[in-house]
Amino acid sequence: MTRQELIAQIKAKRSFLCIGLDSDLDKIPSNFQTLDDPLFEFNKAIVDATADLCVAYKPNLAFFESYGEKGWESLRKIVKYIGNTHFVIADAKRGDIGNTSERYAKAFFENLGCDSITLSPYMGSDSIKPFLNFPGKWAILLALTSNAGADDFELLETSAGKKLFEQVLETSLTWGSDSSMMYVVGATRPEQFTQVRKIVPNHFLLVPGVGAQGGSLKQVCEFGLIPDIGLLVNASRSILYASAGPDFAEKARAEARKLQNEMEEILSSNGIV
Amino acid sequence: MTRQELIAQIKAKRSFLCIGLDSDLDKIPSNFQTLDDPLFEFNKAIVDATADLCVAYKPNLAFFESYGEKGWESLRKIVKYIGNTHFVIADAKRGDIGNTSERYAKAFFENLGCDSITLSPYMGSDSIKPFLNFPGKWAILLALTSNAGADDFELLETSAGKKLFEQVLETSLTWGSDSSMMYVVGATRPEQFTQVRKIVPNHFLLVPGVGAQGGSLKQVCEFGLIPDIGLLVNASRSILYASAGPDFAEKARAEARKLQNEMEEILSSNGIV
Repeated sequence: MTRQELIAQIKAKRSFLCIGLDSDLDKIPSNFQTLDDPLFEFNKAIVDATADLCVAYKPNLAFFESYGEKGWESLRKIVKYIGNTHFVIADAKRGDIGNTSERYAKAFFENLGCDSITLSPYMGSDSIKPFLNFPGKWAILLALTSNAGADDFELLETSAGKKLFEQVLETSLTWGSDSSMMYVVGATRPEQFTQVRKIVPNHFLLVPGVGAQGGSLKQVCEFGLIPDIGLLVNASRSILYASAGPDFAEKARAEARKLQNEMEEILSSNGIV
Repeated sequence: MTRQELIAQIKAKRSFLCIGLDSDLDKIPSNFQTLDDPLFEFNKAIVDATADLCVAYKPNLAFFESYGEKGWESLRKIVKYIGNTHFVIADAKRGDIGNTSERYAKAFFENLGCDSITLSPYMGSDSIKPFLNFPGKWAILLALTSNAGADDFELLETSAGKKLFEQVLETSLTWGSDSSMMYVVGATRPEQFTQVRKIVPNHFLLVPGVGAQGGSLKQVCEFGLIPDIGLLVNASRSILYASAGPDFAEKARAEARKLQNEMEEILSSNGIV
């Protein structure tokens, strides 16, 4: 999906919501457990209940890999089921030497058909560039994540007086364009969005941390929103597990609707829609 | 596998060789292509040809994932085939927020039965700690990798006058012990081993970059070897693809034997065996 297509989707749906598919078999309604492929069926039900309210889905690879080849089959099926109506993010946080990153790129872009993949920048340029050679596909680099551990290295100050995540943004700007790269910036650190926008004024940011992790959508938008929107705000657990009962899909939709309503209001009050 | 068991293995085999299973179906002998599970069969042939010469195998996840669920099946089969005679490293370079890292830990340690997994430290403590709660299992953190891109961030100087990889070593020292953590330090940067050993005098280092990437085993050992050995030196492509013909297993063994011979000489001249 190209940048223009993504922006058009957001405007049409009045939503920049991404739903994270962190599907935990221990948490899904018990009636799914007896099905042949509960992981796929649960995610399918979530997609059916929310497709018109969000522009992106983000399968979290760990939650599929932990079921081995059966989990990969579920992953492949759900990515195919979502199809090309939504922006699909493989939340995989990969990154390796060139010939290995090439393999990951093929696995996620060509074989699975995802639009994008999250990547750790630690190993530098040649670990990321193999993901930038696929038209319409995106590399989403970790910059400043939503977890407490971000303090350890991401917020470390360099000898040039920058935080490491700022240097990651600056250095990686030369690797691709705002049509092939996005950055992960956590909603739990809204005070950093101003600085992020100074370095990457036009890039889309994938923003986790709204919902279960406590980040504020309003604050994220106050500092992160740009005329081209430039935000994909993710919620996972707050939607997927809004209810553990038979009304899980309805409750998931209500949670997604709540976020979409807030987003519509923000887009509208900023004159974007 | 515990530290003491690993050291005992190394002394018994007079080898600290790790063989990387970066198995590329495009590069393996053509007679494998017609088999039902060429990926497993090729790796099995490599294991059969080298098992007495190495102490560790390191399946590279990208080369399995790129074949989807079929690849995961091959991975599971080869890890099971290797069994508990060798130290098995899932070269996966994972790392995510706590609840997701927990999932990866279960996937690789419990479901697949690997002894260890490589991890990117970028997201900090809570992305790594979930891997440290499994007795006899290991987290192997990227410190200084063998690729050119390591210059971008790993070698960046912090305001405290340290390189980022040195800070990663220092900070992470408090997370686990030298019986639950190792570090990746590339053979292509032997001049850094002295500094690494100042910070982590007792930890095992997983050393890629000997072989196809051009690193020198002798130099690595000159600066990295400790009385408890503390090194697992990896070679992948130089062994796996020593020949593309029907003699591939024999040639792979010859390459592994060459490295094992060098290692034996080093262990012996240092009075370790």
